[in-house]
Amino acid sequence: MKIKLIATDIDGVWTDGGMYYDDGENEFKKFNTSDSAGVLFARINEIPIAIITGEKTNIVQRRAEKLKVDFLFQGINNKSKTMADLCKELRIGLDEVAYIGDDINDLKLLTEVGISACPKNAPDYIKDKVHWVLKKNGGDGAFREFVEKILMEDDLWDATFENVKGLFK
Amino acid sequence: MKIKLIATDIDGVWTDGGMYYDDGENEFKKFNTSDSAGVLFARINEIPIAIITGEKTNIVQRRAEKLKVDFLFQGINNKSKTMADLCKELRIGLDEVAYIGDDINDLKLLTEVGISACPKNAPDYIKDKVHWVLKKNGGDGAFREFVEKILMEDDLWDATFENVKGLFK
Amino acid sequence: MKIKLIATDIDGVWTDGGMYYDDGENEFKKFNTSDSAGVLFARINEIPIAIITGEKTNIVQRRAEKLKVDFLFQGINNKSKTMADLCKELRIGLDEVAYIGDDINDLKLLTEVGISACPKNAPDYIKDKVHWVLKKNGGDGAFREFVEKILMEDDLWDATFENVKGLFK
Amino acid sequence: MKIKLIATDIDGVWTDGGMYYDDGENEFKKFNTSDSAGVLFARINEIPIAIITGEKTNIVQRRAEKLKVDFLFQGINNKSKTMADLCKELRIGLDEVAYIGDDINDLKLLTEVGISACPKNAPDYIKDKVHWVLKKNGGDGAFREFVEKILMEDDLWDATFENVKGLFK
Repeated sequence: MKIKLIATDIDGVWTDGGMYYDDGENEFKKFNTSDSAGVLFARINEIPIAIITGEKTNIVQRRAEKLKVDFLFQGINNKSKTMADLCKELRIGLDEVAYIGDDINDLKLLTEVGISACPKNAPDYIKDKVHWVLKKNGGDGAFREFVEKILMEDDLWDATFENVKGLFK
Repeated sequence: MKIKLIATDIDGVWTDGGMYYDDGENEFKKFNTSDSAGVLFARINEIPIAIITGEKTNIVQRRAEKLKVDFLFQGINNKSKTMADLCKELRIGLDEVAYIGDDINDLKLLTEVGISACPKNAPDYIKDKVHWVLKKNGGDGAFREFVEKILMEDDLWDATFENVKGLFK
Repeated sequence: MKIKLIATDIDGVWTDGGMYYDDGENEFKKFNTSDSAGVLFARINEIPIAIITGEKTNIVQRRAEKLKVDFLFQGINNKSKTMADLCKELRIGLDEVAYIGDDINDLKLLTEVGISACPKNAPDYIKDKVHWVLKKNGGDGAFREFVEKILMEDDLWDATFENVKGLFK
Repeated sequence: MKIKLIATDIDGVWTDGGMYYDDGENEFKKFNTSDSAGVLFARINEIPIAIITGEKTNIVQRRAEKLKVDFLFQGINNKSKTMADLCKELRIGLDEVAYIGDDINDLKLLTEVGISACPKNAPDYIKDKVHWVLKKNGGDGAFREFVEKILMEDDLWDATFENVKGLFK
């Protein structure tokens, strides 16, 4: 089964769920550079990445732009609907999608896609419903682990790794 | 015993106790999106949430507004007094209140309410006085765990979980 | 042996050593509210607190002011000299001072005072030279643990605890 | 083998890989004061330090200036090339260089230098290629551990330690 789209939640997956508020009107999230390699691994294989998150911040927009993420959907309540529309646009099936999420608003989509995963520290009622419970926590490289695992599953990892090494010679 | 009000301290419960100071006059706290589901679970059951904290910052006000917390009391020295007044206003008994705190200024209130809890990493002299020592640390989802446990105790969890899943379909 | 002054390093003791730099000219440190109780416990016993740190930031000045710390020495290279002068001013002996630090610039002073301590995660060559290796890491409540331990040693803890509880009734 | 240059990656080595984004255009990294002693230990032995990082931020420039790091190379894709040029300039061999990195863009350089290391939490495919897998994670003092280990290897540590103690008398 070749995965043709990798989709991901943000808070609790690309972050540890932390939301930093200041005393004015600013807010921070802490991403992990380790996950940026996951985006690169997917791009090399021409697998597009989609972010689908319930929150809506400039923070995530900036991160998506920095990493050249293909699709960004923020402020999404019904993630299944968003994904169905995207699949139609890309002319792929839900069974060709891999999705990682960590909470109840991810649950429906997690049960619809071809490969589903959650970080190690997700609640048990999420872990029980996904194909893969990853070894990494959210914000600690879980997304990168997810992409590597997908590529291994599809026998693409070794070539990807050699390819990436070549980028830095 | 049906709990009719869930009350909570902030620093050390919704956060890991961290207070970020900058070199000017700004300050940050790190909340966890995981706890926001706890607020949602309570709202679905029409159980109001009250924040009672000794500190007084715009940070907590912003977080309370974002999550639509029902009652916010900041700069409170005598938490028992504040709670007694609130119970009178809501016409409920202290034994119908659940409270989570982590330090000495929470101790009196913790011994007065129907259900008391503290995060796993609270001092021993707090742990010794509460009904529940939670599995999660402060800032790591302890408040969400607290709300889930209350709803389980009152046989409301399964319906709540189904209800929340329905919100994201 | 009654301790008459409690002195402390900041980075690595009140913090985990973290220094947050932004892309402009700002900087953050993360303190822990848990340690603020340590300052309170000392004040109740009329034991002054002195901060002695090699760094010099507005960050620490703000934290010291917030907690009403008695003495603040920043930008100090020779901590032993600063402490000797302070002892003279306070007319106390070095053996009546308790000091907590975590690194080589603390080493001389740590070997001069009546009670010395370091956080659990200090380097071995610091641990080997102090009276107490605490259970907590820097930034995780090590300073509070230090103050509690001093008060226990001097049979002041039980009264202090009752006293503090009384402050929040 | 006397090491004549200590070189280091930043993200994931001096930090835990965390990249903090705010809701405007600002960004933070969290350094650890513990690593600053590593820079000092090298300077005492007149071993220059070089930072070689793929990112390009004012954050790292500020940190490098604060610690008086000798060489700073930012926005580097081909780290091997940068190092080869630097070695030529310094008239030293690659076998006299020690380098610490944590990811695929460090891999080629890691296999070229005299001593290579990575933090404990680097991916397995990095760990497999370095001389030393350190005990510390990135951002938790891994760089300091690296410098201490180099100096021990070259029988310079004891003198360095005495020397540093002397700086704070």
